[in-house]
Amino acid sequence: MTTTSPPIDFGTRTHSARKANVAGLDALFEPRSIAVLGASSDPTKIGGRPVHFAKESGFTGAVYPVNPKADTIQGLPAFPDIESIPGEVDLALIALPNSAVTDAVHACGRKGVKVVTIFSAGFAEMDENGDAQQQKLVDIARGYGMRLLGPNCIGSMNRRTGAVGTFAASSGVPFTQKPLATVALASQSGAIASEWVVAGTQQGLQFDPWLSTGNEADIQLADVLAHMAMDPSVEIIAAYLEGCRDGDRLREALELAQEAGKPVVVLKVGRSEVGATAVASHTASLVGADEVFDALFQQYGAIRVDSMAEMFDVCYALAIGKLPEGDRLGILTGSGGVGILAADEAGESGLEVPPTSPSLQRDLKAIWPPAGVGNPVDLTAQLMNDPKLLPSFIDACLADGGFDQLVLGVIYMGFLEPWSDLLVNGLTSARAAHPDAPIVVTASTRPEVRRAIEEMSIPVFADISNAVKVMGRINDYARRRREFEDRRASDATATDSTAVLPGLPETMTEVTAKAFISAAGIDVVPEAVVTSAAEAAQAQAGLDAPVVLKIVSPDIAHKTEAGGVVLGVATPEEAAAAYDQIVASARAYDGGARIEGVLISPMVTDGVETIIGVSNDPTFGPVVVFGLGGVFVEVLKDVTYRLAPFGLETAKFMIGEIRGSAMLAGARGAEPSDVEALARALVALSRLADAHRDRLDSIDVNPFIVRPVGQGALALDALVTTR
Amino acid sequence: MTTTSPPIDFGTRTHSARKANVAGLDALFEPRSIAVLGASSDPTKIGGRPVHFAKESGFTGAVYPVNPKADTIQGLPAFPDIESIPGEVDLALIALPNSAVTDAVHACGRKGVKVVTIFSAGFAEMDENGDAQQQKLVDIARGYGMRLLGPNCIGSMNRRTGAVGTFAASSGVPFTQKPLATVALASQSGAIASEWVVAGTQQGLQFDPWLSTGNEADIQLADVLAHMAMDPSVEIIAAYLEGCRDGDRLREALELAQEAGKPVVVLKVGRSEVGATAVASHTASLVGADEVFDALFQQYGAIRVDSMAEMFDVCYALAIGKLPEGDRLGILTGSGGVGILAADEAGESGLEVPPTSPSLQRDLKAIWPPAGVGNPVDLTAQLMNDPKLLPSFIDACLADGGFDQLVLGVIYMGFLEPWSDLLVNGLTSARAAHPDAPIVVTASTRPEVRRAIEEMSIPVFADISNAVKVMGRINDYARRRREFEDRRASDATATDSTAVLPGLPETMTEVTAKAFISAAGIDVVPEAVVTSAAEAAQAQAGLDAPVVLKIVSPDIAHKTEAGGVVLGVATPEEAAAAYDQIVASARAYDGGARIEGVLISPMVTDGVETIIGVSNDPTFGPVVVFGLGGVFVEVLKDVTYRLAPFGLETAKFMIGEIRGSAMLAGARGAEPSDVEALARALVALSRLADAHRDRLDSIDVNPFIVRPVGQGALALDALVTTR
Repeated sequence: MTTTSPPIDFGTRTHSARKANVAGLDALFEPRSIAVLGASSDPTKIGGRPVHFAKESGFTGAVYPVNPKADTIQGLPAFPDIESIPGEVDLALIALPNSAVTDAVHACGRKGVKVVTIFSAGFAEMDENGDAQQQKLVDIARGYGMRLLGPNCIGSMNRRTGAVGTFAASSGVPFTQKPLATVALASQSGAIASEWVVAGTQQGLQFDPWLSTGNEADIQLADVLAHMAMDPSVEIIAAYLEGCRDGDRLREALELAQEAGKPVVVLKVGRSEVGATAVASHTASLVGADEVFDALFQQYGAIRVDSMAEMFDVCYALAIGKLPEGDRLGILTGSGGVGILAADEAGESGLEVPPTSPSLQRDLKAIWPPAGVGNPVDLTAQLMNDPKLLPSFIDACLADGGFDQLVLGVIYMGFLEPWSDLLVNGLTSARAAHPDAPIVVTASTRPEVRRAIEEMSIPVFADISNAVKVMGRINDYARRRREFEDRRASDATATDSTAVLPGLPETMTEVTAKAFISAAGIDVVPEAVVTSAAEAAQAQAGLDAPVVLKIVSPDIAHKTEAGGVVLGVATPEEAAAAYDQIVASARAYDGGARIEGVLISPMVTDGVETIIGVSNDPTFGPVVVFGLGGVFVEVLKDVTYRLAPFGLETAKFMIGEIRGSAMLAGARGAEPSDVEALARALVALSRLADAHRDRLDSIDVNPFIVRPVGQGALALDALVTTR
Repeated sequence: MTTTSPPIDFGTRTHSARKANVAGLDALFEPRSIAVLGASSDPTKIGGRPVHFAKESGFTGAVYPVNPKADTIQGLPAFPDIESIPGEVDLALIALPNSAVTDAVHACGRKGVKVVTIFSAGFAEMDENGDAQQQKLVDIARGYGMRLLGPNCIGSMNRRTGAVGTFAASSGVPFTQKPLATVALASQSGAIASEWVVAGTQQGLQFDPWLSTGNEADIQLADVLAHMAMDPSVEIIAAYLEGCRDGDRLREALELAQEAGKPVVVLKVGRSEVGATAVASHTASLVGADEVFDALFQQYGAIRVDSMAEMFDVCYALAIGKLPEGDRLGILTGSGGVGILAADEAGESGLEVPPTSPSLQRDLKAIWPPAGVGNPVDLTAQLMNDPKLLPSFIDACLADGGFDQLVLGVIYMGFLEPWSDLLVNGLTSARAAHPDAPIVVTASTRPEVRRAIEEMSIPVFADISNAVKVMGRINDYARRRREFEDRRASDATATDSTAVLPGLPETMTEVTAKAFISAAGIDVVPEAVVTSAAEAAQAQAGLDAPVVLKIVSPDIAHKTEAGGVVLGVATPEEAAAAYDQIVASARAYDGGARIEGVLISPMVTDGVETIIGVSNDPTFGPVVVFGLGGVFVEVLKDVTYRLAPFGLETAKFMIGEIRGSAMLAGARGAEPSDVEALARALVALSRLADAHRDRLDSIDVNPFIVRPVGQGALALDALVTTR
């Protein structure tokens, strides 16, 4: 990844813009012909491997080795240059020294190539000269209407069509058996893509098609994701991500995948401080704050995983299994301990483990009296003796209607004869009765037993805790997928609203900042600006409560530091004194500061202190933040983010996902808070931030007091900064 | 597991008690002879399998089938009853119908059998009659000085000696290759033990010896752990635990393992609410609160894991690898992305990822200039081209002295030729130069490559995130092991102290409770008890601060509820009025309550509010709890536990492990708190609780205010209840 700016603007979210970014990408995965510039007769060399792999991949299009020094390359006729090739060339691979690349890209353009993939290194990843040279390549390609993958990349591969666009040795690793689980892969790291392709073959998971974006001079990961979202041959998308230069493009791609109903499983690295530093030094570019990526993935229904192993497990289960319609998990095992392990994990993975219904308990007891008929259901070791027990129990559990999904813990039945036959037969009969039920099996298995179970659309895991964890991730995804249309409609109200939003004030004081957010629909505490001690006394008398006085100055951002705040002023006399004290302190703090007066407002104490705000992320634009005040933000960093704008559904989800959300539900004997009002304020803030995305820098509403249900929520202070 | 009480008391922690509980257990794992009562000629039947397995296990002792209906069983001479056997019998296995078991146990006793294992079911796990019958078996066995495993258990197995004490089919599963990693296993579930033995063979991990304790009528899991701790042939112990009836025995066993320097890896189920309910219904017995188990494992250096997969990974890494001497992790990869994945996980696993030193950076650059020389170190794809690169980089990193352990991410080098040779050769040369360095490799591998690396004491994982997570668990263990002697010496001071502890007061009021803890060395706020409004006014005048007044009555535990508390009393007149108000409220609340006066003490506001206390766990005795006050305890449940008594080291560890510990370090601009004083109070509380373990029910010191460094910490309120 580099700092080179993208060649195609994507400012407006229009269908044509979508098309522009994915234009030509089908030539990467479904080219009719491939030219290899720098083709080698040695099948182990970078220029030789694509030719070698293409001969073995089943590719039915033409492969044209280009090498002025050879007549034939690996048995194929070679051409001295790309323009000598008689037919059309969809995809050209450049395996040439750095110095020869510019001419080669020109030649490809003249030939009418659709996509050129540049393996060669020494561009933006090297130094400024390389960066300039790379930008020139992009300009050349754009001049010909040609797309460019890389440079400094390992290319692309499609086993389905046999289209080889890579020199990665991993492309030569065969599957011993046709994989059942196929997942498209877009990666910003070539090494990661290669490793996953190889490691996938070990676990029955085929990443296909796959691609690595290298320096992303033209084609970005987001473009590839968008292409895959629209490609009907792709059902599930895996992405490895280090950073992103164009947040709108990524957002758009995830939206497309969501519309298409395709799960996107993302491994985004750099979640820790050390990791983020390593990303920065690795990519040498601005990559966006990790929390904002989290918000993005939440908002657009992507499944974020934290490791390769989790990526594989989630992709495998998505590809093999069925999506659940609800959260309720039934646990069936032949061992009490295994059932408890599943229940322990379910609690942490967002799955519900409801008790079995009385009628189900009767049904199960009728089948096998010694069974444990709570949930987890314990079939006891009889599971291994009675061939009818497993299908009968599965059938009873699913027919009862109390569970949306089942996990079976059958310990070593899948490994040892004669029990493995019993297991496969039992599952076959259960599956025939319930063809669409989401079922996951956990067992030690022999490969052929595993395969037989997988062919029934039943994923098999060795470890039940891991299986339930993965089911939890997929359950979260399925829930968000069910809620997608509602959430989208709700978010659309934020975008479509015709309510007039206020313009940015010229100068920013607490008074103008409050007026700004108030005009956007966020309640603020009643207040008056006074310009003398006498006015202060009078204002205090008009308010039936202790008041707070605060300095108003466009030059003083940190009012407390300047001695510009006095709390708990109970009488008119105290108010007059506080006025004088504040003005004196502020003058002492900054003699040149413009003082516009003193703000006087009632103290508000009956409510939960929260913080709402906006920061304008350089990659993703305005991001709304929400957290509880006090120790929650300052000690526990208990905050959550969403990209602006969004609707009420999203706002309510935000409110529910902080760790301290119990505070708003009425913890410690307090009344429940007016979370509806809080949610409306978050939506209003998101609209305001979106409207001013060009000039706004940040909004900080702190504290924002959420009062008991029905009494609303209001800002006690606000700070707005602009660029 | 059952509710039957254990046959041997273990109240006093003496060497003889230790011996009593492990007496005879060597006959389970190293018997000279085995008799099978109910032996069958059918090798697939429960009575046939032990005979069948013993013939194939390499057991060199005698095997005596006992069956009155046969002359020979599976080619061995059979005996009509155990007493007809000519030689001595160390281990007898009972595979008879429930009704025949009592007579058989008698016969075994008369024969002088050392341990009798009862496979038969239908005892305490069934009903009250079964429980009574089981207790009779224990009495019979004890009368003969014979130990008893089970009933309702699958027995024991020792592949090393060939001693077969089980009918588990898993015992017949062969290893295709002699395993490098061998771990002893004690399990409370037969199904779990069988599954792990089978699943282990799939992952190169041999659980041996292993045993399942069934109903635990006599031999408990703790006894087996203690035996394994003392058995020189055992190096690592794995335990599967659902609950515990005798906390002292388990504590003692873990202590023995710690003294012996043997890691104990524990999977304790029931950590979630649903899981705990399932445990309770599965074991039908009191099993101890999960948090207390957590405290126990922390305190005695056991490694708690949450899944079978984690159990296998931790055991494997312990068995294959080397223990680190410190927390500093060096990350070496051939892919930037893989390095970042490792760094991300290290941050969450308690491993430090220090930057490389300038001299190391120079050294690495000298070897391969394009390398990324921060930590993670990125060798780039050159890793796969230059055979000397990997050993040179490993050598430089270890010679530098800045890292205590290394993780290598070599992606698919271990899978594809010719790179796998390069990898093995590179590691061989690095290992020769650094024979004791803790190194972990992450790679896709072929089995023979993996084996070659493991033989260098280098564990191999497929996933780098998982590898680092496991390294983190082992690092925690290694740290606690290094600190063990210090911590033990510190804890011993709590036990050995000769300071006189106060007796339990006769009646419990706030006044006597505070006096009780004060006498134990915990500071309490200065206070006076007044018995009239006039005295209250006088007392207020003598204190230079606002005061709090609280009712003193042995009959009123919840003072606030009774209107018995008034805060912030600033003048003598207010104090007099508050006195009258409190007494009137208390009388209205409970007309029969004995009122001993009103407590008056200064308000203390400068400090961090904490809660310290004791609850007397039915299984493990007094447990000290610590948490921060307010939302930390009430909303976030941010508390930690330790078994009493303990010393300062343990107390400080407790203080550091709560999530909100930053509050005590001086968060939000506050001064750092006097954590030394807090730690001393926790130690004092633990000693007090230990001294009164027989009659104490609970102590609740809330709030306990920790003031700034040097100013101590003091109790503002205390509640003590007795049994």
